[in-house]
Amino acid sequence: MIDVSAKRKLADVVIKNGKIVNVFTREIMSGDVAIYKGKIVGIGSYEGKKMVDAEGRYICPGFIDGHIHIESSLVTPQEFARMLAPHGVTTAICDPHEIANVAGKEGIQFMLDDAKEAPIDLRFMLPSCVPATSFEHAGATLLADDLAPFFSHPSVLGLAEVMDYPAVLTGEKQMLDKLTMTQNVTNQIDGHAAGLNIEALNVYRTAGIRNDHEAVTAEEALDRLRLGFYVMIRQGSGAKDLPALISIINEQTARRLLFCTDDKHLDELIEEGTIDHSIRLAIQHGIDPLVAIQMATLNAAECFGLYTKGAVAPGYEADLLLLNDLETISIYQVWRKGQLIAQNGTCFHKKQNDRTLSEQLTQSVHLPSITKEQLQIPVNDQALVMEIIPNTIMTKKRIESVTVKNGLFVPSTALDQLKITVIERHHRTGNIGLGIVKGMKLQRGAIATTIAHDSHNLIAVGTNDEDMLTCIQEIERMQGGIVVADNGKIIGTLPLHIGGLMSKHPAEQVVEELYQLEQALKAVGAPTHFNPLLTLSFLALPVIPELKITDMGLFDVTTFQHISVAVQ
Amino acid sequence: MIDVSAKRKLADVVIKNGKIVNVFTREIMSGDVAIYKGKIVGIGSYEGKKMVDAEGRYICPGFIDGHIHIESSLVTPQEFARMLAPHGVTTAICDPHEIANVAGKEGIQFMLDDAKEAPIDLRFMLPSCVPATSFEHAGATLLADDLAPFFSHPSVLGLAEVMDYPAVLTGEKQMLDKLTMTQNVTNQIDGHAAGLNIEALNVYRTAGIRNDHEAVTAEEALDRLRLGFYVMIRQGSGAKDLPALISIINEQTARRLLFCTDDKHLDELIEEGTIDHSIRLAIQHGIDPLVAIQMATLNAAECFGLYTKGAVAPGYEADLLLLNDLETISIYQVWRKGQLIAQNGTCFHKKQNDRTLSEQLTQSVHLPSITKEQLQIPVNDQALVMEIIPNTIMTKKRIESVTVKNGLFVPSTALDQLKITVIERHHRTGNIGLGIVKGMKLQRGAIATTIAHDSHNLIAVGTNDEDMLTCIQEIERMQGGIVVADNGKIIGTLPLHIGGLMSKHPAEQVVEELYQLEQALKAVGAPTHFNPLLTLSFLALPVIPELKITDMGLFDVTTFQHISVAVQ
Repeated sequence: MIDVSAKRKLADVVIKNGKIVNVFTREIMSGDVAIYKGKIVGIGSYEGKKMVDAEGRYICPGFIDGHIHIESSLVTPQEFARMLAPHGVTTAICDPHEIANVAGKEGIQFMLDDAKEAPIDLRFMLPSCVPATSFEHAGATLLADDLAPFFSHPSVLGLAEVMDYPAVLTGEKQMLDKLTMTQNVTNQIDGHAAGLNIEALNVYRTAGIRNDHEAVTAEEALDRLRLGFYVMIRQGSGAKDLPALISIINEQTARRLLFCTDDKHLDELIEEGTIDHSIRLAIQHGIDPLVAIQMATLNAAECFGLYTKGAVAPGYEADLLLLNDLETISIYQVWRKGQLIAQNGTCFHKKQNDRTLSEQLTQSVHLPSITKEQLQIPVNDQALVMEIIPNTIMTKKRIESVTVKNGLFVPSTALDQLKITVIERHHRTGNIGLGIVKGMKLQRGAIATTIAHDSHNLIAVGTNDEDMLTCIQEIERMQGGIVVADNGKIIGTLPLHIGGLMSKHPAEQVVEELYQLEQALKAVGAPTHFNPLLTLSFLALPVIPELKITDMGLFDVTTFQHISVAVQ
Repeated sequence: MIDVSAKRKLADVVIKNGKIVNVFTREIMSGDVAIYKGKIVGIGSYEGKKMVDAEGRYICPGFIDGHIHIESSLVTPQEFARMLAPHGVTTAICDPHEIANVAGKEGIQFMLDDAKEAPIDLRFMLPSCVPATSFEHAGATLLADDLAPFFSHPSVLGLAEVMDYPAVLTGEKQMLDKLTMTQNVTNQIDGHAAGLNIEALNVYRTAGIRNDHEAVTAEEALDRLRLGFYVMIRQGSGAKDLPALISIINEQTARRLLFCTDDKHLDELIEEGTIDHSIRLAIQHGIDPLVAIQMATLNAAECFGLYTKGAVAPGYEADLLLLNDLETISIYQVWRKGQLIAQNGTCFHKKQNDRTLSEQLTQSVHLPSITKEQLQIPVNDQALVMEIIPNTIMTKKRIESVTVKNGLFVPSTALDQLKITVIERHHRTGNIGLGIVKGMKLQRGAIATTIAHDSHNLIAVGTNDEDMLTCIQEIERMQGGIVVADNGKIIGTLPLHIGGLMSKHPAEQVVEELYQLEQALKAVGAPTHFNPLLTLSFLALPVIPELKITDMGLFDVTTFQHISVAVQ
């Protein structure tokens, strides 16, 4: 590389006639960019085996997504990376929290292995909260000793979002083991400080947690910055916090700010983009494009100690974008390690041969035989009802009069009171949680899915027991995925072969399958003003108020206790 | 620590009523600072075993010196740290280049061991250029394999200033070994890019070098910033670059700028300060005090990947200053790891028991018996003369008519042509370099010292051979130091017990000894408008133009060849 830098040897690639975005000084500069063996080796006047004419475009460092759960896209790391690439994301910091809750170490290893062949650089944080809570049964338990061997993997950066604040606060041993182990190896511990006040943030920072992506107000973001957290401004398919946080970006604060998506669905990713979308939004809100680009590049690299990423300069990885402009961030080409990987919205990556997947990943649905009787909910006239708050992952806890027959709850489309169940699917324990949900608005049939945060048990909602059973049986047959049934017939499926979370199909095919599934959902009357599948998958997350359901039954998040559906 | 942060347990120390300098947001904030086991565990409302009233003073992170050679202070690391502490420097990144050139690994180990007991945090970069050049004989040779074991020492951060640019440019194997070894362990490689142009800087950055402290013009500094170097603005006893570089400090650039001193003499350190002095100067030049403090704290910490330094926030080391104001940076108290180490200019550190020093350190002067004949310089009427350029480390190469007797050079105070010699003192090789120097202006007697950059052989200058020999013999007897002789008598000495570079005496005593030595220097007519000892010690550095002298003889830096004194 020194030989090439010193011009004794030709570069592999030289990009000429570009306007270089210098994130160190926030300037636009001229000069050729010389690339050799995947790294930038010089800015100036160079000759290479391949000469690329930027035709006056901006040469910008590749973008970095600070925190993402690939599983939310329903495709494999490789496929997800192929979709990210055209949007200029050349590095993403991934938390395989979902697959780890299903398949433990095997799940993490799959992500690492598949990511190795991805067209962009996927780095990993090790899931810190598997299982996520003690109020449900997950597929695996990961202690510090389980995580330790992964630290030697070159793609592993540290410990993923520490969600279990109570465990940190109380100094729970298994949590401290993970924190201290990580601090002994690296100092990268990601935060998840949802709703924490300053007193809690003090504890959280003291525990070595370095960043947070859960600030949803400017005040929260400032609290975090002031206490030394890097703040990730999240704009994904779930939370869209950028508009609320835009006011904190200024000359004083910007260096400790970066972007992330957290969760990004395929359709939105393809339609509006990802980190490029965040930059565009920031610019639309009046932020200097070079500040926004710094956030997406140098700042993110600094946050994660990635010293060879985030800039167009010698010694840095040749992860580059050619941008048509700095207003709309229109992306012409994307280069990763000196290779052109995408142009005008298309990634050139060819999927490697299908990986042989272990049984733990492909056979992840283990159900007992379920009978109608097991879905019965004994109630009186009144019962507890979970009411969906559309476009949030929260619910309201209500007491309502319900239809009762022979002492058992009967779903009612008229009252919008449907039956919901969570069935433990990892170890065939026979645990079945039952409840009543309002707001799902199905007019007929049933839906079921193996995506149910965070333990990803089987969750099903229905207007009648028969269709619910049909869905459950089909999910077992498919070994994971999403099913819609109506009148005893399967009318829509999306197989999720890998852990019941990710499809083995190409992203384009999954998009098509999702479209077909949406038609089936419409056929049973599922609402369209919010995402019914996303909403369903979060009804099992027992840390978000007020009422949730796990395989262990209905759960009152305000008292942190399981609770009976029947009102005495 | 979590217990204290969560207020379940009392803090060790709580500092109340302070105005906290927040370097993340560049704000002044209120709140108690709670400290436990040397770390900050909370900002807010706390109670501690010890309550400290800041009385409205500013609570500021401790300052960091980005690059310093302790040896230039003539005292041990512990003593130097004791002098630094009252000036608010709680961390210094040290390069033991000088002692390593004398005593190799033993020298580095001594610095590490002594530093362990210092009141402030001394971190070390491993000398990359021992010997500094092939045109002289140093006391040791350090290859990558010699340095490797030191990387496991907790105080070692990386590789020290890579001065041998030609070795980098040509890809010289021993240099590449050191660079790649360091990159495999840490990514911290310090630069020394004196005078390098953009083409050379490309090569230098490509080689993984991350910072530079040798920019002496704003243009040079900007070149370095733009290519991705952190730039240290140096203001020491030698180079004073801050005024020339002040114009580059702005909102765009500041985050990649920090301060260093490189070399700082005891008297100046005591009189004007060090990094505190740099901050004051910057403020006087119109820089926002909070920007200047960021440079001295957070920016420096980021540059060196010191994630728990450089800020007043939970999880950070309790290295704190109480400042009386933010205009003159008047320092009231200095805290290191939660301990009060200095107040109103006085450090409370008590020196530990004298370390037993190895012979390699205390017996470092190995001379052959030197006779007058060995100091003879055969010349014709004309000879090459090194002319000192005052207050620089450069010389001019001149040809002058000289006084000759029996074909041998005779020193002349009238012509200001004195004799100079460099005698190899590490391995008793018998190498003696001889030359003629102009500008030292002695009127009588002679001076000798074992500080002679970078190989630290014995260098002596005199008006007559007898006094030169007297000096040389006394240096051998003292085993290192500085000697002034006149008319056959020793009239001033400063013993430098450790490697001929550092005194084992307390700093205050060394200051007094230096004062006495100055009187002796005045007595033999040494100039006072520049530092004659400093100038003398750099006449042996064969990389600074135009004419220098090593133990191998006179050296022409323009042609990189040894050269005869006699002009044919």
